[in-house]
Parts: sequence; C-alpha cells; structure tokens
Amino acid sequence: MPLGEFELIARYFARPTRRAVLGVGDDCAVLAPTPGMELAVSSDLLVEGRHFLSTVPPQALGHKALAVNLSDLAACGAAPLAFLLMLALPRPDEAFLRGFAQGLFALADAHGIELIGGDTTAGPLTIGITVLGEVPPAAALRRSGGHAGDDLWVSHPRDGGIGDARLALEAFRGQAGLSQEAFAAVRRAMEWPQPRVTLAMALRGVASAAIDLSDGLAGDLGHLLAQSGVGAQLEWAGLPRSAAMAALPMALQQQCVLGGGDDYELLFSAPPSARSAVQSAAARAEVAVSRIGELRAEAGLRVRWSDGSVSPWATQGFDHFSSPGP
Amino acid sequence: MPLGEFELIARYFARPTRRAVLGVGDDCAVLAPTPGMELAVSSDLLVEGRHFLSTVPPQALGHKALAVNLSDLAACGAAPLAFLLMLALPRPDEAFLRGFAQGLFALADAHGIELIGGDTTAGPLTIGITVLGEVPPAAALRRSGGHAGDDLWVSHPRDGGIGDARLALEAFRGQAGLSQEAFAAVRRAMEWPQPRVTLAMALRGVASAAIDLSDGLAGDLGHLLAQSGVGAQLEWAGLPRSAAMAALPMALQQQCVLGGGDDYELLFSAPPSARSAVQSAAARAEVAVSRIGELRAEAGLRVRWSDGSVSPWATQGFDHFSSPGP
Repeated sequence: MPLGEFELIARYFARPTRRAVLGVGDDCAVLAPTPGMELAVSSDLLVEGRHFLSTVPPQALGHKALAVNLSDLAACGAAPLAFLLMLALPRPDEAFLRGFAQGLFALADAHGIELIGGDTTAGPLTIGITVLGEVPPAAALRRSGGHAGDDLWVSHPRDGGIGDARLALEAFRGQAGLSQEAFAAVRRAMEWPQPRVTLAMALRGVASAAIDLSDGLAGDLGHLLAQSGVGAQLEWAGLPRSAAMAALPMALQQQCVLGGGDDYELLFSAPPSARSAVQSAAARAEVAVSRIGELRAEAGLRVRWSDGSVSPWATQGFDHFSSPGP
Repeated sequence: MPLGEFELIARYFARPTRRAVLGVGDDCAVLAPTPGMELAVSSDLLVEGRHFLSTVPPQALGHKALAVNLSDLAACGAAPLAFLLMLALPRPDEAFLRGFAQGLFALADAHGIELIGGDTTAGPLTIGITVLGEVPPAAALRRSGGHAGDDLWVSHPRDGGIGDARLALEAFRGQAGLSQEAFAAVRRAMEWPQPRVTLAMALRGVASAAIDLSDGLAGDLGHLLAQSGVGAQLEWAGLPRSAAMAALPMALQQQCVLGGGDDYELLFSAPPSARSAVQSAAARAEVAVSRIGELRAEAGLRVRWSDGSVSPWATQGFDHFSSPGP
C-alpha cells in the first residue's frame, strides 16, 4: 500500500522535539532562542546528478545533506541548534527513506540538534536543508576579517588531506585510476564529510576569517580574499594530501587539491601570534590542521611549488551552472 | 554570455540587508533576535508541475513562493523577519529571474522582510523558501488549542470566497467552464494569494487554534480537529463563495470549497464570546472573515447543507504524492 505524504512524514521524520516549543506537525516550528545570542542561518539545496550521484547509498546521502549545512554553520563558528528538511522525491520509497533518515539523524544526534519542520513532496530527487545555530554577539567568523600577514590554515582528517572528494569524483568519471583500497578511502571522503563544528567554535576569537571548502580551495579562498581585500600565497608542500593523492600525476593533484570541491573542511586565517591557540583548538576538536600559506597585501592568489618557483593561480570556484555535475 | 552562479546571485538576489548582521554572501546569515521573543520558522518546497504550472508568469511565481511561506508564519501569528531562498533552475534564464525576483521582493517589501541567504543551482525548476518570524512567548497560534463550542472562522478576500484557486486549477484542466472575466478572477486567486499575516497577528490571544488553508478546507480542518481532539460542523450556507463559484453545479462547488487547496486563507477557532474581537481584528487587517461553523465534542466533520440536512464529510487533504499535480 503506498504511503501518503502525511504518513511518510510521521513514520520517518516526526520525532519528539526537546528544544522546540512547537515542532514537526504545526504550521511553523517555534524556538526559544538563548537570551543574548545571535542567530546563524544557512540553507543548501542538493539536486541529484548535480550535487550527488544516483549511486550514493541513502544513508550517506542523509548524512551528507545535513553535513554540508552544518559545515556552513561551522564556517561562522556557530553552535548548531536545529534544522528543517525539504525533500522532493519521485515516489514514496520506504527503503530510501529509511536509509536517508538513518544517516540524517545519526549526524543530527552526534551534534545534539533536532529536526523541527520542513516539507515533503513528489518531484525530482531534491534535498533542501535549513540549519539554525547560535553564536555570541559579534563572535561569528566571517569571510571578511583576514589581514595581510595572517597565516592560512586548513582542517583535514588526521589520516587524509584535502581534494579527496574531488578525486573520488574523478575516479567515478574514469579520470583517475586508484587501487580498490584508495578508492574506498576517497569515496568515504566524498560521501561522509565531517563538518568541523567543534573546531570552528574553538576558533572563535582566534581565527581572523573563515570559510568552508565546498567549491574547492582556490575558489573558496578567492571569496575569502575578495571579502577581506587581500591576496594570498599557498605553499604546495604544506597542502595536506592523502597517500592516494600524493601518488598521482601532478596535474591531477592540482586539479583535486586546488580545484577540489566537496571537502567541507574549514579554511581560515589567523595571525602568526595565534599559532599555538590554533593548534590547541584543533587538538581539543580532535582534528588535524595544516598551515598552508599566508595572506598578502598584493591582490591575487599565487602558489609556491615544491621546487621554489611561484606562479599565479586562478581563484574561480566550482560553478553549479557551468560545471558538469558529479 | 551565460551568467555564472555567483554573478546571478549577485545580480538578482543580493540586496543590502538592514536587519541581518551578516547577509547574502557569507556562509551563514546572522540575525540578532529581539530579546524576549520566540522564533518561528517554516520551510516549503515548490516543484514545477506539482505546485505550480509551467504557464505561471515568473512574477506571480516569485510572489506565490514567498506567500505560501508567509502564510505558514501567519498560521502561527508570527511577525515575519527574514527569509532564505533555495532555487534550482534548468539554466540561468535572465528573463525568468528578473520577473521572479520582482514578484518575490515586492511581497517581501510589503511585509518589511529581507532575503538573508540561500542557494542557487542548476536542476529541475524547484523553489525552497525558509521564513523566519517572531512571536511573543506562548503567544503562537497552534493547531491544538480548539475547544468544543468554539466558532470556526475563515478569512477571505472581501470580493471573493474560498476554493477559487482550486476552481482555477479545474478550469486549467478543462473541468470547469468559466467566463473570461470569472477565469481571470479565479486565476488571480491561484497565482497571487495574500498571506494573512496582519490578521493573524491581530488574532493573538483571540483565536483558540489556527491553521492556514493550503491543502483544502476539509483536509486542513482535519489537522486542526485531530490536534485539538474535537469534531466540527460546517454550515454550507456560511462558507464564503465568489460569484463565479456560486454559479457552478453543486458537486464542483463542493470539490472546490471543501476539497479546495492553495487558498492560503486563515482557518481559525475562537470562543463565541470573542466574536466582536474577531470582527475588529479583521477590520484592522482590512480582510473579510466569515463564521463557517463550530467545533463539537463529537469526533469527525459534518456539513449542514442549505436544506437543513446534515451529512458526514471526509477530512483527507490534498496529498502531494497521491494527488495529480496542478
């Protein structure tokens, strides 16, 4: 028997809310904000064939849909509170919904946040999520706070680097040959990104500017540079690369590490005087950080390669209109 | 020259924000909530062919996408603050975007709210909006507050009734023959719904329960009844019907007025002692309200017809999975 819209919502998405005054099942969710805190809000829309492959397991998709939104909150240093889910799917597919809800709620529970509302409908598979978070007044990390002379840092898994999600995409496209083990590792980076919420909260008052890596290092750094009114030089040797990445031809490494996309790591700047504060924030958050270059007064992005030569590098990001989908 | 994603966002959707601490262009929007107020949040997802016809003018679509979300805030009695827009469209179509943005921002400006963030991508035409509003503590209107003996009320245009949007849909489907003038009027009801925000705010402390009419009178009333734990009797003669509607065969009137859908009027209950307070709230909000029946202790929905006979009526709503699209 096909499930109707309301039954579907109730079966997979209606869970008791702790924090919400009114939760799923009324016209609005109502929350009581913590007095004195500012509210951080972000929305992302994920479209099949554009942001994820049809081969992605539903659990991973549920995880990633929320992870990319939590990553936006992290980029602002906000503590996550709650989220709303908008879901269009071609038909009420119970196996899909069960897996999707599992992945979604496992990550929500890990961050102590709850689903407070949303909308479910028929349509081409599309996932929209809005996350709400809180941040103390004037403590939000911004893209615009960087200064010439600041260090540039990036977070990454302790056993991995950046660019692995893009490498998985290239492997799916047949553009990169990887061992079975290496493919499994980079596919995991693509499908199960870990939003750096704890690190970002620990970096409040330490980082001068921050952005999350969603469109690729060069592109997202370009936004940070434009809004901070500075340039930057990256040290190729300092860019964290997984073992699988480091074994690839240089052009492919550049494409994945600098072009990248879908990392959901934190890119941030901080004055050199804050190096030990950055390292201790990373240790508390149990995530690795690497110093990858510095902000410069001179506009534009340059890369210093391992042989000591320096060349300019374009900062355009992954464009979901003009770039091919995954 | 095709516009890239970032340029598109900047050209049509980046406007200076007044209220937001951080607006469009950073990872999150950051807002400073009014001290002591609760936060109301709602999200809706609109899919082409399901929630709107491909023939809808872009301006009307921009208006309606925001209107249906403001209507959810109205159902809670919340004052609108801001919204986020998630937009998937097949290609960066400037004419579409210009019209869409015009309709969207005209309604946003009318309610004094601003676009603070969102996401734009390629994909099948899909619009997701999240609205944020504020309501004093414990003042939110809920679906669950109705009591047996309360009057049932519905808002409507002064020169129209409810069910006109559904009638327009039936006319588009060739299921209802209307004069050119009548078709223009009901099409306007379908494409330019007016969220009852001002009325709802005036009904705080007056209405005992409220819901907005999105899935049809019988269906939405069913939600209110279920959550309030009561039944209801509607008076057919009291249901506001436009001149075009009243001229139609009875079966079609029932389908449109009781089945309905897409009205975005406010359905609410209030004790009989509040009748003059309801009327004065409606007068202040410059909208008509009609008393259409009452809540009863006996479960279920009944309709008393013009001849005095009473019969039960099913409360299932419009289901965006099992019902055909518009």
